[in-house]
Amino acid sequence: MSAAIDRERSAARIERDIETLAGPDYTLSDEAIRRYAYTPVYRNTLDYFTRELETLGYEVGEDPVGTLVARNRPPGETAFGIGSHCDSNRNGGKYDGTLGVVTALEVCRLNEELGLGLPLQLISFLEEEGSGFGQMLLGSRIMAQRVTEEDLQERFRALDDGRSFWEHAREAGYAPERWRDSIRLLDGLTGWIEMHIEQARVLQDTGNRVGIVTAIAGYVHADVTVHGRGDHAGATPMDFRLDPGLPLAESILELERLARAAGKGTVGTVGEIEVHPGLINAIPERIRFSLDVRGVDDEAYRGVVRDIAAFAEQAAGRRGMTAEVRERQTLDPTPLDPRIVAALEDAARATGEPFMSMPSGAAHDTMCVADHVPSAMVFVPCKDGISHSPLEDADPADAALAAEIILEAIRALA
Amino acid sequence: MSAAIDRERSAARIERDIETLAGPDYTLSDEAIRRYAYTPVYRNTLDYFTRELETLGYEVGEDPVGTLVARNRPPGETAFGIGSHCDSNRNGGKYDGTLGVVTALEVCRLNEELGLGLPLQLISFLEEEGSGFGQMLLGSRIMAQRVTEEDLQERFRALDDGRSFWEHAREAGYAPERWRDSIRLLDGLTGWIEMHIEQARVLQDTGNRVGIVTAIAGYVHADVTVHGRGDHAGATPMDFRLDPGLPLAESILELERLARAAGKGTVGTVGEIEVHPGLINAIPERIRFSLDVRGVDDEAYRGVVRDIAAFAEQAAGRRGMTAEVRERQTLDPTPLDPRIVAALEDAARATGEPFMSMPSGAAHDTMCVADHVPSAMVFVPCKDGISHSPLEDADPADAALAAEIILEAIRALA
Repeated sequence: MSAAIDRERSAARIERDIETLAGPDYTLSDEAIRRYAYTPVYRNTLDYFTRELETLGYEVGEDPVGTLVARNRPPGETAFGIGSHCDSNRNGGKYDGTLGVVTALEVCRLNEELGLGLPLQLISFLEEEGSGFGQMLLGSRIMAQRVTEEDLQERFRALDDGRSFWEHAREAGYAPERWRDSIRLLDGLTGWIEMHIEQARVLQDTGNRVGIVTAIAGYVHADVTVHGRGDHAGATPMDFRLDPGLPLAESILELERLARAAGKGTVGTVGEIEVHPGLINAIPERIRFSLDVRGVDDEAYRGVVRDIAAFAEQAAGRRGMTAEVRERQTLDPTPLDPRIVAALEDAARATGEPFMSMPSGAAHDTMCVADHVPSAMVFVPCKDGISHSPLEDADPADAALAAEIILEAIRALA
Repeated sequence: MSAAIDRERSAARIERDIETLAGPDYTLSDEAIRRYAYTPVYRNTLDYFTRELETLGYEVGEDPVGTLVARNRPPGETAFGIGSHCDSNRNGGKYDGTLGVVTALEVCRLNEELGLGLPLQLISFLEEEGSGFGQMLLGSRIMAQRVTEEDLQERFRALDDGRSFWEHAREAGYAPERWRDSIRLLDGLTGWIEMHIEQARVLQDTGNRVGIVTAIAGYVHADVTVHGRGDHAGATPMDFRLDPGLPLAESILELERLARAAGKGTVGTVGEIEVHPGLINAIPERIRFSLDVRGVDDEAYRGVVRDIAAFAEQAAGRRGMTAEVRERQTLDPTPLDPRIVAALEDAARATGEPFMSMPSGAAHDTMCVADHVPSAMVFVPCKDGISHSPLEDADPADAALAAEIILEAIRALA
């Protein structure tokens, strides 16, 4: 059957969708893609998908807060879910999220064209990027009941005008008081596949056109503060110092060693370093640095966190200083469904194109779906790993290949 | 002769001077010592010294910009110079600078009381701390002709109101147009000794009451920027990273190793670290860090600068990154006069009190004097090395001991 798929035509349709949605009616900015919930450009974007899907005979609607849902089967019947999100970062590119919805649309088109008759449901989640209310994965978290009514009524406020999510949703014609019904988006779903750009450079640098995601990483965010002693940089001999820069340096190197040793896709990053007082001629009094440790293997990455925390304390102690480690936030990894992953791998293999299996280091709406429905994800390369930027770039031909793989996997699972 | 010196009386007088000059007439702040050029409290401070010195029979005057000078010999005759500065940091303590002038005053008192007849000249330099015009060592730099007329007329401006040094000096009754005559402060000086608190903890921690300074350190201030590649901290595997934090960490540790290996009082400090973009979930794109490398042995500390610059470039290169090193500022070390240093060491030894010879890591007015007149310095301990803070603390008994040592050294050199 896959011989019947015209990949070039798919690529052309995907490119047309992407370029249309990069036009002035679909972004608030001339220099970037900027669209988020309840703005006219976001409304236009939902309308575009609605028109395209209605043309295919899909019944299209929205949940109580504005997540788009389209089905080629009446409610009550089962279907396979596909989709992503079509909001953007405030200074975003054309592909993050949107390419996943466009590719899901292409899967729907192919299904109808080829007369496959697969029962499908497309979802485009609201506010994945958090550009409207500063809350990432907002639509999928509402669906998964990972928020409270107080969050929606009070805590989550528009970055633009400070008014509540609740107020904005009502004003846009939605029924936020029925937010708990959003979970019914998943009613009857037998599986879920989200396609997304990789947002890193692994596929590009390894020459793969597709990544089959095996799990979404969990993470620990923490801060380490090393307390030294502020002294005059000129007047204090080396032997009289308690310089917190040295345990910092040792910890940075040890984190790299530990993350590599842990393997299984574990990564560790020091992204923030704050030096007090931060003067060229003063030995720092204290230094705070952040830890971002992630992985899909719970034991592996949590082991790195434990080890680096102990190491930092010991490194400080060895030099007569102290270090304290404080956890900021932690999120468990999301294992993906082995049966769907295997079907995607088989379908990818059948195309003859280079692909790989890989974890996702970034968070996605699929994390909220996977608790309820067997789920998987497909990545396509983005140039130099650049994302959340107008420089974001991806190849519609890779997305067309992903559409074919997703369609074939769903067919095999049916 | 030294048997005749009553150290307790000296300590009591020094304490009285210090406490008087910490009173409300002598500081702009209730919570710290804050006095700088051309303020009423600075005027009061000069007047205090003037009265005390006139009581001893000294002829007291000021140079064209307001540096205080007092002699017990008429102009044209030779004399030995002693003194320091009596302005403070904006959030300063009672001892930095002022204790040196007070101790010089005590040397004058002892000279008269004991009838030693030593020819002395006391100097209290203007604006050592730079609190008035943001220019450190301003009075002694004017004297040493290390400024330009344009600096004084245009570039050096009051932190309080932005008006020029020139304007403020004239308004205070001085003659800045004659600033070049300030060098005549040194006319007839056969030597110079400045006493100052150590501003570090070496004397305290080694149990010494006095330090005889053998040289004032030179320094290099520089910045190193490591250029990596900004990537997503979750989505970028360890093998795909160009993380500038790693060359930073290696360079911090190598700087410590190099400074220790160089010996001869060489010190090296990383006091500033600036991470771009500085987000917990982003591998830094680049990191800038500062270098402060000092020492009294030119070859030793400049060798450390050369080696750490080369190391940082290589450490970056080994990991596929680049590093650039940019010098900000450099100042040569100031060797002190071996004959005066030896006389001070002999006098210190004669007291039977614990003392040590040591370099000065911090800058002092003596750097500007030493080019023209054989010079030396004496340090006394300050509690926990704390300086430039209202918490600054020192023992008048140590200052009294220093006064005795300075007096005896001058006597031996006469």
